[in-house]
Order: sequence, then structure tokens, then C-alpha cells
Amino acid sequence: MPTLSVFTDVPLAHKLEGSLLKTYRQDDCPNKLFLAYRACMTKEGRPWVSVVVQKTRLQISQDPSLNYEYLPTMGMKSFIQASLELLFGKHSQAIMENRVGGVHTVGDSGAFQLGARFLRTWRRDANVVYVISSQQEPHGRIFQDMGFTVHECSIWDPKKLRMDPNILFSVEIPRGCVLVIGNIVDCRLTQSQWAKFMSTLKSKRIFPFFDIPCQGLHNGDLEEDARILRYFVSGGFEFFCSQSLSRSFGIYDEGVGVLVVVALNNQHLLCVLSQLMSFARALWLNPPTAGARIITSILCNPALLGEWKQSLKEVVENIMLTKEKVKEKLRLLGTPGSWDHITEHSGTHGYLGLNPQQVEYLVKKKHIYIPKNGRINFTCINANNIDYITQGISEASSERKKTLIGIKV
Amino acid sequence: MPTLSVFTDVPLAHKLEGSLLKTYRQDDCPNKLFLAYRACMTKEGRPWVSVVVQKTRLQISQDPSLNYEYLPTMGMKSFIQASLELLFGKHSQAIMENRVGGVHTVGDSGAFQLGARFLRTWRRDANVVYVISSQQEPHGRIFQDMGFTVHECSIWDPKKLRMDPNILFSVEIPRGCVLVIGNIVDCRLTQSQWAKFMSTLKSKRIFPFFDIPCQGLHNGDLEEDARILRYFVSGGFEFFCSQSLSRSFGIYDEGVGVLVVVALNNQHLLCVLSQLMSFARALWLNPPTAGARIITSILCNPALLGEWKQSLKEVVENIMLTKEKVKEKLRLLGTPGSWDHITEHSGTHGYLGLNPQQVEYLVKKKHIYIPKNGRINFTCINANNIDYITQGISEASSERKKTLIGIKV
Repeated sequence: MPTLSVFTDVPLAHKLEGSLLKTYRQDDCPNKLFLAYRACMTKEGRPWVSVVVQKTRLQISQDPSLNYEYLPTMGMKSFIQASLELLFGKHSQAIMENRVGGVHTVGDSGAFQLGARFLRTWRRDANVVYVISSQQEPHGRIFQDMGFTVHECSIWDPKKLRMDPNILFSVEIPRGCVLVIGNIVDCRLTQSQWAKFMSTLKSKRIFPFFDIPCQGLHNGDLEEDARILRYFVSGGFEFFCSQSLSRSFGIYDEGVGVLVVVALNNQHLLCVLSQLMSFARALWLNPPTAGARIITSILCNPALLGEWKQSLKEVVENIMLTKEKVKEKLRLLGTPGSWDHITEHSGTHGYLGLNPQQVEYLVKKKHIYIPKNGRINFTCINANNIDYITQGISEASSERKKTLIGIKV
Repeated sequence: MPTLSVFTDVPLAHKLEGSLLKTYRQDDCPNKLFLAYRACMTKEGRPWVSVVVQKTRLQISQDPSLNYEYLPTMGMKSFIQASLELLFGKHSQAIMENRVGGVHTVGDSGAFQLGARFLRTWRRDANVVYVISSQQEPHGRIFQDMGFTVHECSIWDPKKLRMDPNILFSVEIPRGCVLVIGNIVDCRLTQSQWAKFMSTLKSKRIFPFFDIPCQGLHNGDLEEDARILRYFVSGGFEFFCSQSLSRSFGIYDEGVGVLVVVALNNQHLLCVLSQLMSFARALWLNPPTAGARIITSILCNPALLGEWKQSLKEVVENIMLTKEKVKEKLRLLGTPGSWDHITEHSGTHGYLGLNPQQVEYLVKKKHIYIPKNGRINFTCINANNIDYITQGISEASSERKKTLIGIKV
């Protein structure tokens, strides 16, 4: 009798990721294009790495004085400090009051994992999580797996083709819940609108959990990209924030993150950090240092810091230029519809504003691989492929129009 | 009225680690010594790094062709392959039958975290975990946090001052449980004793979960240090194994691990790996690459591989030499008791065989910092401190003896 496997009842898991990339890779068409890479890409179609990172990596590898001993569970102290100052400003009142701290994590997933565990244990009554973002966030699942009830809502309005800040006011967020505020740099509220929003959160005792995944890559301005956090600090909020700097430096493969904690005073902060450490100990014991070491070396050296900031500006300028070109080419091709939304939003990724049929047309007929929601990485567009892509978008848009008015093509 | 903190009910967590190191650091005594570092230390008292690692790190940092894009959730394929071959041998039948696989994890904590989650979800009836090891393992807590009932037993017999393999037979391990088999290289069973043990596990449908935290650092022989796994493979077992190579290369700060899966056939393996991936996605999304890249470069290059193996041999020889010297010096000092257990056991860490009072004497009177169980890192002993340490041990042992026979000193 053959032995029965222990794993007999384990089914194949549903594909969660990479199926678009997989299909793209298996596609034999020479013109195929993939516009959904998570990393920021260069004009040559390679993952962007800030020039200063290469230099620093080399310098580190040549430094005989470095110690590769285990980090404490909390992580690299100097890295946490430098990251917090980047987020809140070197002269942040809250930092000076010792009520801002952080735990070095394995990327943003690690930060959410850690934060969610803490909330699960120490805020037992808060079992609802609202996620507000401009896209589908993977973090919702982390909360779900831990038993939270998760609601997600996007501030992107696919009909009006713009980010709709009103969603913040129209959604009925339940009292005492956790509110994950995703990457919503493009959600332009006035300061008084923020004040109104914050007052609602406060009166309902809602706990904010921010996600800052690519500071500097939206406006090329580090302060601007973290402004919302500073509002909340000055509004007297306590909150968590997942800060990941991997993408802003081009060290995608390292997952360098911090779970940032803002508390009302130092005593509470220390308690929270100590509990977080005990969770981190079970999760990864010591966070990996390679990426953190590179980032810290850059942040703590004024010359390197300057070079990095300059490299961010160049990337952002290049993104805006690409978006302008795409819009202009679509106009010249007589593509139906308005394409202003492309240049109205910042960052590497943005919505093309195509419907599912149009996306399908691009994937199936043009071999241009785009996620179903039409949100692409604009840095995947370069001089070599912009004509093919805009031509494709134009065809897809006209195609849809023709189908709609009943012309069979 | 001042605002009430959200964190009001969060107490300070109990210190879980590092308190001995902290006390050591705060000690002003110039003679103070710390003998409990987790890393393997050099004669100069610095964390050991295999020479070939430094070279490889430099080479990698100078390679302009490298891509720093996100890894898939599964991790670095070439790294997993090379790690599996290191564990089971290049010509392992099981590897050829495609029924051995792995997921790249954040160190061994990550591997246990991932494996425990899988078992929690897919073996719901198995809620008891037995941990057999030669020391207190941090992994027990991971299972405990997930709701498993954890029992730990050590094969170290503090009375007989030796590893006692009979514990494997005397402990009543319940049917269907998970058995974590820690680092028990020193538990020398004959092949027929292993066979007997395996037959018990099989009849009780006990699922083994191995921990191989420092292959090569016990006997300086990679095959020898993983022999137990090969027994289980040839015994037709399905199992998990946490494989961490950080320590064997001296890349302590990277946490490079693999959760190894051995299944009866490829179909089961693929199902298990796919489920593990969905857990890994929530845990860290993409594992960090820096350490894995260094290790893979070495394992896949015969010349570098040879150099690495040589460096392991040197470390192990040095450990044995240190242990011999310690024993000889204790003998010359006329220290009461037998010290053969020091040289009878392999690896960087080992028991001194001191009781709590003797350990306390060393810490308090001699400023030699040793954990309560008396398990020290022998690589912390070098030419500069061996006399002070052996003198201290000798005093502690005599001290205890004097107290016992009623002489007040």
C-alpha cells in the first residue's frame, strides 16, 4: 500500500500575483510590452537605481571596519532615526519631545504585519479596518488574515477620471476602527478640509495607519510627499505609519521599512515599542541590514543626501515629461476623450482611464500588458515604445467607441 | 482636559532578550567579558566573516549588470536551488524526483513563522508542538503565539554533563503532533537507533520540522552536519526544515533562510509551496536579496565554494583547539570535576556545565557574562582572555565546592 501524503488535503493556492507578468513572459510576440512593473524604470527599460546608491554600495563593500553582527530586534538605530527625520523633518517638535519612534521592518508588508499584530492584541475592540487608497492595496489582506473585517475604498473615480477627495467625507467610517490611509498624495485637500477630516476621526476615536511607500517620488519633494503626516502630528494624533524607502532609493530587492509610531508622550511610546519588539522577535528576530545601511549612509551624509534629492527630482521630471508626451501624442492621434487626468496626477503609477474592454484590447491585440484597472507604471514608457503604446491606446479607445455605436470592425 | 492616549492600556513588554548584553555594556569593569554572542567570533574578538564573503560582496557591488528589481515572493530561485543541494547533496534522489522545494525566507525565524502558519491552517488537528533541542529555542514561542500547545525538552543532561539521545525515546510524543527537531548534531544515535525513532514517528503520524541553523559549523563537514535530514528523506518522510545559512557564511545581519519542504511527490510539493507563497506574501512580500546573492555566488562557483569550505574547516579546528586549551587549563588549575564534556561536543556554542550559583559567581565577581544555563560561545575565548576565563571558572567551581562543604569564604 503506498504511503498517504501528509499534504493530501492541501490544494493549489489561487494565483495571487504575477499572473500578468507570467503571461507576458510566455508571449512570443516581439512587440510585447509590460507596463505594470512595480519598480521605477529607466529610459533604457531597467529598474531605476539612484546613482548615489551604486556609489554607496561600493563604498560599504570596501569598508573593512564594518561589523556584520546581528542587529538588535528593534533594528538599526541610526537608520530609524534618519528615516524618522526624513518623514517629520529634522526639527520636528514631536521628535524633540521623544514621542516619535520606529521599528525597523522587512519592507512595508513587514510594517503592516507588525502594526496589525499590535492592534489585534492591544485594541481588541477595534476589529474593523477601513482602507482608503488610490489603488487596490495588498495590506488589506494582512488585516483580514488576522481576523479583522476589512473594507476598502478607492479615491480614484473611474467615471470622472480623477482622485475624489470627497470620498473621505462621504464614507461612513465606524467609530473606533483602524483607518489605513494609503498613498493618497494626489488627494488634494485644503488645510481646512484636512482639519475637518481630522476632527471627525478624533471624535470617533479612529486610529490612523498611514502608508508612505515612495516618499519623494511623487513631487520630487520629500517634505511635500509627507505633508499629510505632519498635519496629523500637529493635530495631536497618535498613529502608525508604514514607511518604506526601498523604492525611493531604487533598492527594490531589500524591503527596507520602518513601522513609525507617534504617541502622545515618551512613556506611551516606549510601551508600544517594547510590545512591537516582542512581535518582531517572532517575525524575523533581526531585520536585514544591507538596504538600511546604504540608505543611512546616504541620509547622514549631506553631499550624498543632496545627490539623492537631485536624482529624485530628475526621475519626477522625467515622469511628468513622459506623461505630457503621452497626452500630446494621444491628442495628435485624434484619440476620443480627455486625457488630462494623465498629467493631473503625480507619481510613477497612474490610471490610464481605460475600461476593461479597452484594457483587454491592449493586452490581447497589441500585446501591451496592463492590469485590469488600467493603472500603469508610466516609467515603463520610453522613446522606444511610446509611439506603439499611444497608437495602441488610441486604437483601443476608438475600438470601444466603434463597438458602442454598433460598427462591427 | 488632556487627551487620553490610545495606548493607555499598553504596558511595557517583558525584556525578552539582550538584558545580559545590556548589563555587560553598562559594566565599567575593564576586565569584563561577554561569552554569549550569537555570532562566531574571530581570535581578535570580532564577528567572523568567511574571507570569501568579503571578496564576493565587493565583486557584487562592482557588477553593473546586476538587477535590483523586486524578487518574486518565492524568493531567489538560484539561491533556493543551491541551498537545497547543499542540504541534500547535488545528486539527491528526492531533488531529482522534484519533490523537494523551498521558499526563501527572512532567516530562520521567518522559516518557522511561515511553516507554523501553514501547519496552523492545513493541519488543524495538530495543535501540539514538541520541541526537542540541545538548548532553549526561540521558535517555540512562534508556535505558541499561533495557538499551539508547545512542549520543550532538551537533550542536554545537566547532571551527566552530556547530550542524552535516550530522551528521544523516553519522551511520550503525542500522536499527530508537530515535532520540531532542533540543532541536535551532537545527539549521536546509531543508524539503527534512528531507524527505530523514525518508525515511532511514522506510526504516530508525527510531522518533523527540522532546524539546521549553522550547517558546516559543527564538524566542518557540510554533509555530516545535515546527515539526519538525509536519513529522514531516505526513510520516506515528508517534513519541513528551516535552513539558515547566515551563520555559516558570517552574514549575521542578513537573516538568509529557506523553509525547505520535502513531499512524497511533485504534485503535493507544488500545492504546499503555493500555499506557503500566499503566507509569505503577507509576511514580507519579497524576501531581501543581499545575503542570498552573496551565498548563491559562492555556492555556484567551484573555486569560491572550495574557499568557503576551507574557511569552515579552519573555524571548526579553531573551536576544537580552544576547547582543548580550556580543558587543559582547567586541569592544570586543579579545578574540581570532569571537563570532558567541553571537548565532547561540537559547534561554536556549548555548555560549561556550571550550576546557577557558579554562573552567578562568574557574572558578579569576575564580570564574565554567561547565560544562566551556562551555555557559552567558545569562539569568544581567545589568547587574550583564556587565562582570565579559566581562572574564573576554576574559582567558581571551587567556590561552590567550598560552600557545599560548609567552608565560609
